[in-house]
Amino acid sequence: MREVRIERGFTRHAEGSVLVAFGETRVLCTASVENRVPGFLRGKGTGWVTAEYGMLPRATHTRSDREASRGKQGGRTLEIQRLIGRSLRACVDRDALGERTITLDCDVLQADGGTRTAAITGAYVALVDAVRWLQGRGELKRDPIHGAVAAVSAGIHGGLPVLDLDYVEDSGCDTDMNVVMNDGGGFIELQGTAEGHAFRRDELDALLALATKGCGELFAAQQAALAAG
Amino acid sequence: MREVRIERGFTRHAEGSVLVAFGETRVLCTASVENRVPGFLRGKGTGWVTAEYGMLPRATHTRSDREASRGKQGGRTLEIQRLIGRSLRACVDRDALGERTITLDCDVLQADGGTRTAAITGAYVALVDAVRWLQGRGELKRDPIHGAVAAVSAGIHGGLPVLDLDYVEDSGCDTDMNVVMNDGGGFIELQGTAEGHAFRRDELDALLALATKGCGELFAAQQAALAAG
Amino acid sequence: MREVRIERGFTRHAEGSVLVAFGETRVLCTASVENRVPGFLRGKGTGWVTAEYGMLPRATHTRSDREASRGKQGGRTLEIQRLIGRSLRACVDRDALGERTITLDCDVLQADGGTRTAAITGAYVALVDAVRWLQGRGELKRDPIHGAVAAVSAGIHGGLPVLDLDYVEDSGCDTDMNVVMNDGGGFIELQGTAEGHAFRRDELDALLALATKGCGELFAAQQAALAAG
Amino acid sequence: MREVRIERGFTRHAEGSVLVAFGETRVLCTASVENRVPGFLRGKGTGWVTAEYGMLPRATHTRSDREASRGKQGGRTLEIQRLIGRSLRACVDRDALGERTITLDCDVLQADGGTRTAAITGAYVALVDAVRWLQGRGELKRDPIHGAVAAVSAGIHGGLPVLDLDYVEDSGCDTDMNVVMNDGGGFIELQGTAEGHAFRRDELDALLALATKGCGELFAAQQAALAAG
Amino acid sequence: MREVRIERGFTRHAEGSVLVAFGETRVLCTASVENRVPGFLRGKGTGWVTAEYGMLPRATHTRSDREASRGKQGGRTLEIQRLIGRSLRACVDRDALGERTITLDCDVLQADGGTRTAAITGAYVALVDAVRWLQGRGELKRDPIHGAVAAVSAGIHGGLPVLDLDYVEDSGCDTDMNVVMNDGGGFIELQGTAEGHAFRRDELDALLALATKGCGELFAAQQAALAAG
Amino acid sequence: MREVRIERGFTRHAEGSVLVAFGETRVLCTASVENRVPGFLRGKGTGWVTAEYGMLPRATHTRSDREASRGKQGGRTLEIQRLIGRSLRACVDRDALGERTITLDCDVLQADGGTRTAAITGAYVALVDAVRWLQGRGELKRDPIHGAVAAVSAGIHGGLPVLDLDYVEDSGCDTDMNVVMNDGGGFIELQGTAEGHAFRRDELDALLALATKGCGELFAAQQAALAAG
Repeated sequence: MREVRIERGFTRHAEGSVLVAFGETRVLCTASVENRVPGFLRGKGTGWVTAEYGMLPRATHTRSDREASRGKQGGRTLEIQRLIGRSLRACVDRDALGERTITLDCDVLQADGGTRTAAITGAYVALVDAVRWLQGRGELKRDPIHGAVAAVSAGIHGGLPVLDLDYVEDSGCDTDMNVVMNDGGGFIELQGTAEGHAFRRDELDALLALATKGCGELFAAQQAALAAG
Repeated sequence: MREVRIERGFTRHAEGSVLVAFGETRVLCTASVENRVPGFLRGKGTGWVTAEYGMLPRATHTRSDREASRGKQGGRTLEIQRLIGRSLRACVDRDALGERTITLDCDVLQADGGTRTAAITGAYVALVDAVRWLQGRGELKRDPIHGAVAAVSAGIHGGLPVLDLDYVEDSGCDTDMNVVMNDGGGFIELQGTAEGHAFRRDELDALLALATKGCGELFAAQQAALAAG
Repeated sequence: MREVRIERGFTRHAEGSVLVAFGETRVLCTASVENRVPGFLRGKGTGWVTAEYGMLPRATHTRSDREASRGKQGGRTLEIQRLIGRSLRACVDRDALGERTITLDCDVLQADGGTRTAAITGAYVALVDAVRWLQGRGELKRDPIHGAVAAVSAGIHGGLPVLDLDYVEDSGCDTDMNVVMNDGGGFIELQGTAEGHAFRRDELDALLALATKGCGELFAAQQAALAAG
Repeated sequence: MREVRIERGFTRHAEGSVLVAFGETRVLCTASVENRVPGFLRGKGTGWVTAEYGMLPRATHTRSDREASRGKQGGRTLEIQRLIGRSLRACVDRDALGERTITLDCDVLQADGGTRTAAITGAYVALVDAVRWLQGRGELKRDPIHGAVAAVSAGIHGGLPVLDLDYVEDSGCDTDMNVVMNDGGGFIELQGTAEGHAFRRDELDALLALATKGCGELFAAQQAALAAG
Repeated sequence: MREVRIERGFTRHAEGSVLVAFGETRVLCTASVENRVPGFLRGKGTGWVTAEYGMLPRATHTRSDREASRGKQGGRTLEIQRLIGRSLRACVDRDALGERTITLDCDVLQADGGTRTAAITGAYVALVDAVRWLQGRGELKRDPIHGAVAAVSAGIHGGLPVLDLDYVEDSGCDTDMNVVMNDGGGFIELQGTAEGHAFRRDELDALLALATKGCGELFAAQQAALAAG
Repeated sequence: MREVRIERGFTRHAEGSVLVAFGETRVLCTASVENRVPGFLRGKGTGWVTAEYGMLPRATHTRSDREASRGKQGGRTLEIQRLIGRSLRACVDRDALGERTITLDCDVLQADGGTRTAAITGAYVALVDAVRWLQGRGELKRDPIHGAVAAVSAGIHGGLPVLDLDYVEDSGCDTDMNVVMNDGGGFIELQGTAEGHAFRRDELDALLALATKGCGELFAAQQAALAAG
């Protein structure tokens, strides 16, 4: 597993602002609190947690088009931001949050594989900071966060299971799996893809074991970062 | 598992045209052959297989907006069509296909859960028909299809693992998993989601066992349909 | 005139669902009832009837782009759906409908000329079924439908007037006319186009006579289908 | 029929530039010549004639949204510009034009009913001026224009047939018909609409007689204007 | 400075309608009054003045694409309409206007350099006419217009400072400056650009002196036009 | 003037990557080299320099919508990126660059006033780094950079001229001026805006003097940063 760094308070305006690094991958995750909810939740006394994902045009080896300029978000972007939103909602008691929306913006400053897993892991910390900010203002009756959420990738590379793939490993991979877990050992999301070779059940088992171990390290890193403040 | 029906030749213009039903879910899958490839493949002697997915506005219980009229495809649509494309490419030798594109259009006429798994299962049959059409014209030196691809959903509903969820089961589900397999028993895609409750490893094992069994039945249905022609 | 088939109840969720065939042209027409009206009618106690039209990408001889994916509906699509909406409104007493919208979705599964006229003819039957559904629930005080609406094309092909042109005839036509009528013999819409040769008054007369006869057959087919339920 | 004015050379850059007025309706029609054709005609030695239509936001009684700012052209706009394009192509020998495109931009400066018929009538004059400009440079071997094209509306208003409806008449009309003719007495386009009351055959005959007479006056006005230069 | 003409009442529906010409540049400026304000001002008892800018496709030497058809307004268009809006707001007491919006549509019929400065100069006159219209209906307690606003361009061309550049001068210019002033001699907007050569302080001084003189002439022309009505 | 920091090599993939801070405003400027030019320059042996500008959604006090998700860039964004592009082109000999494009992406991580001036100042350093990268590979015959470019804002705040306005000062400002200069003392761009009060000539003079002084400090900071590498 690559070195993980979690830096809280990276920018100053957001209620939570975390720069997370998985090796050379760096993602800025901000949590923004707003006192309104989407239309389908209005008047129901419950909150919402959602995410948006973006990649700076030159976060990658070659420059990619700016989505704002092309006029639409690509399928990959939408897929990832839906994944981040679902993953974080899995640890939030939305009734305890009240009629508020927390938006997690995950913007990749530098990409080297694993941007979605880094984003989920960092967004969790930003989310906790935003909730603490609400608690500090006495706006919540009880803690809406239950447990922690982290994510890591694993893949079969050169016939061997590998944890937390960087860009080079990811490109040469037969199978790529993204695993989102909570700190109770439960699976929140599992996305395995084999564009080249289909993977066997024993390979899947090896990847899940690796990912479980990796998430354990990530929960420790999250806790250490949150304890520091 | 709900009753599966696969009707080939449902429309006449497409090189492959299949109406697939998983219970009350009905998807029209057409395969269109074109003698050109996307820009990134031009001149490389290799082909492409891609998919598009759509839902008729009143395929669902309440009418949903027409994506063409809203001016963009939603995130769910893009996610599903990317999944269908990746899944079908997993059984195609693209060099053997030559510089051709096969586009699989999967349009849901009636939805009752499992539209993406029905689409993949039906699109495979349409793809084979399109390849046979090419073979019938003597345009292929060797068969570009290796093995078969099918997909099924499984979930934990009321504490019990259930195969091939319909809409009611899907809505009340704690965990929803879509599994794409090949007929060699390998996994091509695995997408498990737990927006409510995280799922445990033993639940995952139960779902994978169910899905493996379900895909077995689907491979049989595909073979029966293809033998009929 | 090609063989006309009208199959009611083709899908199960819509309040009216009709598969209409004019020869090899097949259009799925659904009628959806919603208890709201567009902004310009709100609070006026009157209803609305509107239509949307789409063509599956491979309904045609060669695959056409999916409008949802291109991000906009083409001029032809908009023109046709406006025509369908106007035509059906011509037989509806919107005050009797109350503050409800009925949306007629006409999706072409297979195209062989005459998709717009088939769509209007089928949409009328779906509309009647939706009104019957409302009547069955006791929601209407009086019948909002007055008379019937049907449509057919006619053209000058090889110097001779021809009714209900298929794709081959249509492509080779000097003049193409779409005629929408009610069962009282009145004209609702008349759209004649001569991109090649202008048409003379006597040719117009011949086309109108043919179209009147064709619509008579369509009214009979609609009545037979509606009597069957 | 309202007073018709045709002013050539209204702006200076376009190869043809005509301000046409039907009463208070004023439309600026420019014809632009370009030495290229759309992709589907490239290399075939034939030309193209196309049209675009727009309405200034405050051409109307109340301000309407600017289509450029809304991000798309409405269905009515697309329908009208397709009509103008088809109508003008009906008098052009595209082989004689060579691989050139003439684009007719029809922009409504002030609207009072009949904008599309005024646009067609004025665009014809702009088109002739553009062709003369090409002839003046010796770029054409033979005249690509055969005959003239003009258009007028007619309708049943208060039970009586009326020619060239202004906005007030148009709004109160049971039937509205737009007729495009050539100066040989042939019909190029016929678009009759009865959103309220269906129209009978004898009403249609009366409208066609009126329109034929109106187009006669328009051909005279076009010729007078073209003779003046 | 080129000849300036200001023609009021050019079209009839708008509350203010001015055709302004700076030499061969001609812009139609209409002012539309609406009894509502944008969301961010609702309920605050204050009004809004905004502008939109467009160029007819063949206002220029070669035809440019229609922005409505391309589906978005270009950066230049947005920049200019923001400039016009800010400039005109500078002479309006928005509290005195009450909860109304005045929209200034500036559409270029013919371009020969200086379209934005002509638009501002003409829009001021249209704005005054719209305010007089409101006053004529007794809807305003006090005059919301304070002072006048006009704009002119100046540039360094062939080493010499030049006022009110036409297209040829503008294209060959080292420095281009647009100056918006009020009739008290104050600067409202100053936009100087040197894509080729940077300009020195003494050149800037010369341009500002020229522009001040030019705006003086424009204020006189505006007053003369407004006195005429 | 607020503290200025310029950090080179902030990310690793871009040919130039600079994090620039003007007080609490932080902008990431990357320069990307591509061996192709826009269509209008193809085959002319000359290069291109262009810019894109973006703001992370929570760079600001309250979260703003993501432009990629809204589907278009706002007018302010387009205006700023055009300004950055023009400013940087002013110091580049595009013939010496050859048929290459350098794209400057300026993404605001944190905003506190002056984002466009910080962007220009930082983009210059990234541009130099990209040119050095090309020189290091021996791809340039002569240095395409002549002189330096920097930018600063100045305004009248509480009656007094102030340099390098932060957000609070900017919001309370009567006049806001952005000044882009080269290190020869020439002006490249001058944009002064007075939405409230028009500014007098003596105020303009004071602002220009301040801005000239400020740019002097920025040139020194740029040189220091570039000397460090």
